[in-house]
Amino acid sequence: MGISYKNVTGTRDFSPLEMARRNYITETIKKQFHLAGFQQIETPAMEQLNTLMGKYGEEGDRLIFKILNSGDFLAKAPEQLLQNKDSQALTTHISEKALRYDLTVPFARFVVQNQSALTFPFKRYQIQPVWRADRPQKGRYREFYQCDADVVGSKSLVQEAELTAIYLNVFKALHLPVTVKINHRKLLAALAAHIGETEKSAVLINALDKTDKIGVDGVLEILRKEEISEAAIKKLIPILEISGNFTQKLTAIKPLFANQEEGALAIAELEQLEVYGKALQLDFDALDLDLKLARGLNYYTGCIFEVVANNVALGSIGGGGRYDDLTGIFGMPGLSGVGISFGLDRIYLALEQSGLFEDFNSSRVEVLFVNFGPKEAMAAMKLVGNLRAAGISAELYPDAAKVKKQFDYANKNNIPFVAIIGESELAHQTLQLKNMQTGEQHAVAFDAMIAHLKA
Amino acid sequence: MGISYKNVTGTRDFSPLEMARRNYITETIKKQFHLAGFQQIETPAMEQLNTLMGKYGEEGDRLIFKILNSGDFLAKAPEQLLQNKDSQALTTHISEKALRYDLTVPFARFVVQNQSALTFPFKRYQIQPVWRADRPQKGRYREFYQCDADVVGSKSLVQEAELTAIYLNVFKALHLPVTVKINHRKLLAALAAHIGETEKSAVLINALDKTDKIGVDGVLEILRKEEISEAAIKKLIPILEISGNFTQKLTAIKPLFANQEEGALAIAELEQLEVYGKALQLDFDALDLDLKLARGLNYYTGCIFEVVANNVALGSIGGGGRYDDLTGIFGMPGLSGVGISFGLDRIYLALEQSGLFEDFNSSRVEVLFVNFGPKEAMAAMKLVGNLRAAGISAELYPDAAKVKKQFDYANKNNIPFVAIIGESELAHQTLQLKNMQTGEQHAVAFDAMIAHLKA
Repeated sequence: MGISYKNVTGTRDFSPLEMARRNYITETIKKQFHLAGFQQIETPAMEQLNTLMGKYGEEGDRLIFKILNSGDFLAKAPEQLLQNKDSQALTTHISEKALRYDLTVPFARFVVQNQSALTFPFKRYQIQPVWRADRPQKGRYREFYQCDADVVGSKSLVQEAELTAIYLNVFKALHLPVTVKINHRKLLAALAAHIGETEKSAVLINALDKTDKIGVDGVLEILRKEEISEAAIKKLIPILEISGNFTQKLTAIKPLFANQEEGALAIAELEQLEVYGKALQLDFDALDLDLKLARGLNYYTGCIFEVVANNVALGSIGGGGRYDDLTGIFGMPGLSGVGISFGLDRIYLALEQSGLFEDFNSSRVEVLFVNFGPKEAMAAMKLVGNLRAAGISAELYPDAAKVKKQFDYANKNNIPFVAIIGESELAHQTLQLKNMQTGEQHAVAFDAMIAHLKA
Repeated sequence: MGISYKNVTGTRDFSPLEMARRNYITETIKKQFHLAGFQQIETPAMEQLNTLMGKYGEEGDRLIFKILNSGDFLAKAPEQLLQNKDSQALTTHISEKALRYDLTVPFARFVVQNQSALTFPFKRYQIQPVWRADRPQKGRYREFYQCDADVVGSKSLVQEAELTAIYLNVFKALHLPVTVKINHRKLLAALAAHIGETEKSAVLINALDKTDKIGVDGVLEILRKEEISEAAIKKLIPILEISGNFTQKLTAIKPLFANQEEGALAIAELEQLEVYGKALQLDFDALDLDLKLARGLNYYTGCIFEVVANNVALGSIGGGGRYDDLTGIFGMPGLSGVGISFGLDRIYLALEQSGLFEDFNSSRVEVLFVNFGPKEAMAAMKLVGNLRAAGISAELYPDAAKVKKQFDYANKNNIPFVAIIGESELAHQTLQLKNMQTGEQHAVAFDAMIAHLKA
């Protein structure tokens, strides 16, 4: 036909194997969400354009996918803009809807719209795709899933401890060793004050935020460029070098902020998190109080989190924190909350690179029955029905094709068992069951098959 | 703020309760898909515009949501079209991508694009939203989920029997009594020939397709209007009136088509479906051979299906059939397959109207621990951790709020048990467990709680 029909660049089809692995990750996460009382919501893929615009900065506005109005969309468009070919100004005249850019803004809109129906504290999770008109590149997609859990309407540190527990439980269940880095946004501001650079707090936070990419030396270089005094840097370095476990670090830094209100508050909150965390029996060896953790500049106001895989260099595979004002942009100010997100694509890569998908059962079914013709197929089909009713997935090869072709099908689909019912097996009501991995084969009576496979 | 931020008209937010119910439906369906060897795939929300256009007729093209190109989208737009405000002609110049309109066309594109990697017969299912720029009205949405299962690359009637089994197993698991109507597209053509109206086969099929809405009398009225002879109608009526179960009807109509190639083929296929269905031990009382079933004009070529709820008047809650050529439009002709879909929104309504959601457990968690202050909360938090590790969902109310408020929270969230640990309970390492439904309350030792709740 000449035309090649492909998926849109920067988007992905997910094959059965990829879906099975992705579902394994999301089901593991969902299980922990449910155990902790988080409930799922979904919001529509499209939002009103004015709900999204102005929430992600100028660059974000540009990256929002806009949906063309239906029908005669040019009818109401100002002639002048068309003549001038002014794409940017024309956009709001021909587009009223857009695809969601993240899950946070739609969640905020949802909370405001449904505030009278919701019971606070409200714990929700949401796992849905988002869309960004980014230039596609390795590991950056135009469509990808986000996975967020938030509690809004409670300032209690119980939530921070719970969310930390969820992180640890999820990655334990996935067998992926991780470290949850924890810091407090107010501690960063206090740190600037402590080294005598209160006015350059933003510079400090901004520089520390880059530690992962440029290292501590790179951070110090920025600070010097930004004219932070050598005295301040001298005071800062030993603080950043404090080592030890969560408790040891917290104890070590506590005296520094004894007389500094914000810092003392942050320390008190981290101590409270520690107390709740101990009650929840968290594995504190997997927690790190990381004074270099910043997570951007604006949104967060309290504890902040970031998860990294210990043995795979992939950057952050999750992150979150406490915020003071989720819904002010939509006219409902002062709603505090705390949330975490899981980076599903990176978790997938981390599991893949750690060899944790190797034992993953990706078979289409447990048993394939070879089809030798109408009579034998009837017997097989009956057993297929019985197996399924017993919760064992099974299928009959649909045609009496060559046996080699049917075994190829079993191999390509990683089907672990092949059941053979030929003429003589039918006469004896017994089948040959072949283990496709070991090659072993033995006779099993028709009515013993379920028990045999369950064993 | 003056501006009201709402979800887009015709789209829906799904609340926790709605999500729990929707997940219950889709999980029930997915379980049966997996038992029968169907594997999940996903395709992106957006496809290239030329992948979608021209596949759904003129009306369909109009209802496809187009995505505005990013950046300076007017730069390449022909001046003439802008001057003439020719919206329709301009569309393809400013939009290259669109939201999927159904799951069938993206699936066909997926199969063609991945044909060398797939093993046929390929059994896939897909549960994803689709978008249509329809005028919103009661029960018609601009965003809704479709749920499709298809086998492609096999002409065996085994597939038809399996898909029928899936329908019956799913609705049995959902406790919703249904009838699966079955017919064969070639039988409809043969019926036209049998009554001597071969040339008006399309008229006949078109009219029968409306039986649900206008009844048999309405159908006959159309046939008369379309100048189908009285002799033909006289021949048709007793055939449509044939009653009995699947086998009885099949036996009754078989002689009519003995000398008519297409009809004889259809009968043979229905007989084969019956044989496979009996092997699978299908409940034939739930099947109806419905000669009035047509399911549109073009796409289907063999057996066709439609599911209706027996006790709720909602129209079809599922449908599907055999087709000869899924992928010809994308340059890969002759790929036969058969598929079914579940109408998730209507199934939800059917369960709701049948009172089948009444016992549905929509609680946030199993146990809420009342928070009486720091010391008691510590003990509670520890138990919360233990319960979750044992697979029981639990939470601590995050603040030491008034007890009434905490009980209100439990009630509003339908939490079945509230655990109370006050000062004296703490001293005795025993809690008061209150059943919120019965009001009963008794003391349970801390370390007996898991066993108690599991019992």
